Amino acid sequence: MSVNAEIVTIGDELTRGEIVDTNSSFMADRLTELGFRVTWMTSCTDDAPDIRAALQCATGRAHLVVCSGGLGPTEDDRTVDVICELAGVPAEEEPRALAFMKDRFARSGFQLTPNNLRQVRVPRGATVLPNRAGLAPGFWIELSGTPLVVVPGVPREMKRIWADEIEPRLRERVKEPPRVRSFHIYGMGESHIDHRLAGLSAEGVSIHYRVVFPENRVKIVVRGPGADERLAALEREVRARLGHHIYGVDGETFPEVIGKILRSRGARLALAESCTGGLAGHLVTSVPGSSDYFTTGVVSYANETKQKLLGVKEETLKLHGAVSEVCVREMAEGVVKLAQATVGVAISGIAGPGGGTPEKPVGTIWLAIAGPHGTRSRHVLYGGDREQVKQVAAHAALAMIYRYWDSEP
Amino acid sequence: MSVNAEIVTIGDELTRGEIVDTNSSFMADRLTELGFRVTWMTSCTDDAPDIRAALQCATGRAHLVVCSGGLGPTEDDRTVDVICELAGVPAEEEPRALAFMKDRFARSGFQLTPNNLRQVRVPRGATVLPNRAGLAPGFWIELSGTPLVVVPGVPREMKRIWADEIEPRLRERVKEPPRVRSFHIYGMGESHIDHRLAGLSAEGVSIHYRVVFPENRVKIVVRGPGADERLAALEREVRARLGHHIYGVDGETFPEVIGKILRSRGARLALAESCTGGLAGHLVTSVPGSSDYFTTGVVSYANETKQKLLGVKEETLKLHGAVSEVCVREMAEGVVKLAQATVGVAISGIAGPGGGTPEKPVGTIWLAIAGPHGTRSRHVLYGGDREQVKQVAAHAALAMIYRYWDSEP
Repeated sequence: MSVNAEIVTIGDELTRGEIVDTNSSFMADRLTELGFRVTWMTSCTDDAPDIRAALQCATGRAHLVVCSGGLGPTEDDRTVDVICELAGVPAEEEPRALAFMKDRFARSGFQLTPNNLRQVRVPRGATVLPNRAGLAPGFWIELSGTPLVVVPGVPREMKRIWADEIEPRLRERVKEPPRVRSFHIYGMGESHIDHRLAGLSAEGVSIHYRVVFPENRVKIVVRGPGADERLAALEREVRARLGHHIYGVDGETFPEVIGKILRSRGARLALAESCTGGLAGHLVTSVPGSSDYFTTGVVSYANETKQKLLGVKEETLKLHGAVSEVCVREMAEGVVKLAQATVGVAISGIAGPGGGTPEKPVGTIWLAIAGPHGTRSRHVLYGGDREQVKQVAAHAALAMIYRYWDSEP
Repeated sequence: MSVNAEIVTIGDELTRGEIVDTNSSFMADRLTELGFRVTWMTSCTDDAPDIRAALQCATGRAHLVVCSGGLGPTEDDRTVDVICELAGVPAEEEPRALAFMKDRFARSGFQLTPNNLRQVRVPRGATVLPNRAGLAPGFWIELSGTPLVVVPGVPREMKRIWADEIEPRLRERVKEPPRVRSFHIYGMGESHIDHRLAGLSAEGVSIHYRVVFPENRVKIVVRGPGADERLAALEREVRARLGHHIYGVDGETFPEVIGKILRSRGARLALAESCTGGLAGHLVTSVPGSSDYFTTGVVSYANETKQKLLGVKEETLKLHGAVSEVCVREMAEGVVKLAQATVGVAISGIAGPGGGTPEKPVGTIWLAIAGPHGTRSRHVLYGGDREQVKQVAAHAALAMIYRYWDSEP
């Protein structure tokens, strides 16, 4: 039997569309992994009647309600007042949060105003959930027999309280939390992945697909007895079916995996980018310590730069153009030489919206990698907007590195 | 009197936390600009009872309900069925959408399955809202006297139908839609902006703040008689108070504004990036046609690259280090020379999390710009994570260009 959970997020900044509600999706993801079925997620204004109605609906329907927002210091922050009214208890200042706030204000030389005190209130009798990332504590209370968990709306504070206080308590209540593995995939579309994984769903196993452009994620969730063994067997099967399209699992990023490969080979990387304008370098340097293997990037946006810095031949540009196999091979080999690197990757393409021709439409991308195993090149055509073409091209460059040593003798 | 609107978004991918609900914030933003008060936004699963309850609640409370999702071809897409049941009408295939789909399938050589036909159904009697970006049409129907507007969940399709069909119809219904101007601000924090704009709120005027890291947005909304003149007067006042911290309004991006400046000067830009790894070049090249003014970027991640390509002196690196004023000035001057550019901008900093020292903590950034008015440099210290420091540094580089010609004789 499924245990239904609801999420309520409070704040005019949400209902006016000023910010996107990332709290709901974070909490929904965590609750789903823990085995809850999230049925409804509601965002409402800061007005007390709206908050009251939202919490009454949710606690009347669900087995668990999680609520964020409206715990700040201003008169607009009414979540505690509404919950106290619904629970028939007074609000009280929480001594530890109050002491922490007083200490922090004293050290910064700030004056404590009556409004600040609003922020450390909790309903009498509620379980306090300490906030190690901010001032307002969260709390856990029952409303008409339904647990209601309340946290601040600032995502950083919400996530900290979730990790420290909420998830451990929910895990205790869930007898057997599902086992979960997320596979990170590059270079295979959702319908292909779906096709290759056909038949893996079973009683207690669910498979979820998600696009994190230009990558894909597959999440396998296994519930019930023997979940660990079943997940391990499924992981072997998924790996057998998707092969090296899976570049990593769970927390790993593509640039991290590339970094591990380069580091393990003692290789120094150089990049020669044209249409991506520096995006590939930005991705590579998203990894702390990437200076250990990445030394040089050249953004050769102009043809003169391709010639002068990378040694692309005038003839190549004349005969084949800047977006061509010959050109990217010369760029890759040129940047290796220029930077005295182990491997060099080159990207040249037409990001659009202008610049396309019938032979080379917008979205045409040429890539090359040069290094100890010789120079390899490939062609990609992606129909998308300028930002998407750049993202696809930069990730395709990472994929060139990812596969370079695969076919080593 | 305020006209209340509600938003309902449908889909298991939302309630499982697999995707963030950007449709709700988009629609809430548009509805707010049109003068509606969005009170509640609800996301629910694909299950018929959940959809039914969500739509009944919303249409029972609000003056207008907008709903996205559940219009696809699979058995999981039940929005049309639920609405037909609530309205007491049958579903019908919409002839124009059906013809379009048949034509598209025929040209691609795809077989039309019965499931595909589900996607072009609308409730009998509903006003069809043609979808120029996909297969499933939207529609407009009344449920117990409340208008209910339904669109597909794919953001691109939803936005297209919104622009083509929904916003014009809503504008007709709203007698005086508010007048709105959005100011894009770089280099001034939210509390400073708030302080400088004190006293501008008035009857019929509201001011909304929003962080689009590392920028800020201020939106001025004016309602009631004489709104155009009042907005014009407010715009003059806002510009007087915030000066050139406002780089643009409404749709403009920072790289676009930089591009206009460079283009109007006939200037050719080169970049020398260290800690940003190519991000500044990626931003500059987000603008179509940026090859007219951006020619060359050098990502000099290694010190040898700074010396060899940019001519940074060995002595400079020894005495001052790579993150120093002397070094970025040499980098900026070096890249101008290397690329034969008009202006060159250099960035060097400590993105972290490692590499900080007491003298140069993580978040230390040095910037320089070299060009016809000489070389200028500045220092920024930003406490944030690696991605944030890179973003701040790349945007600060854009700001160097933005201001370079300000103090021209």
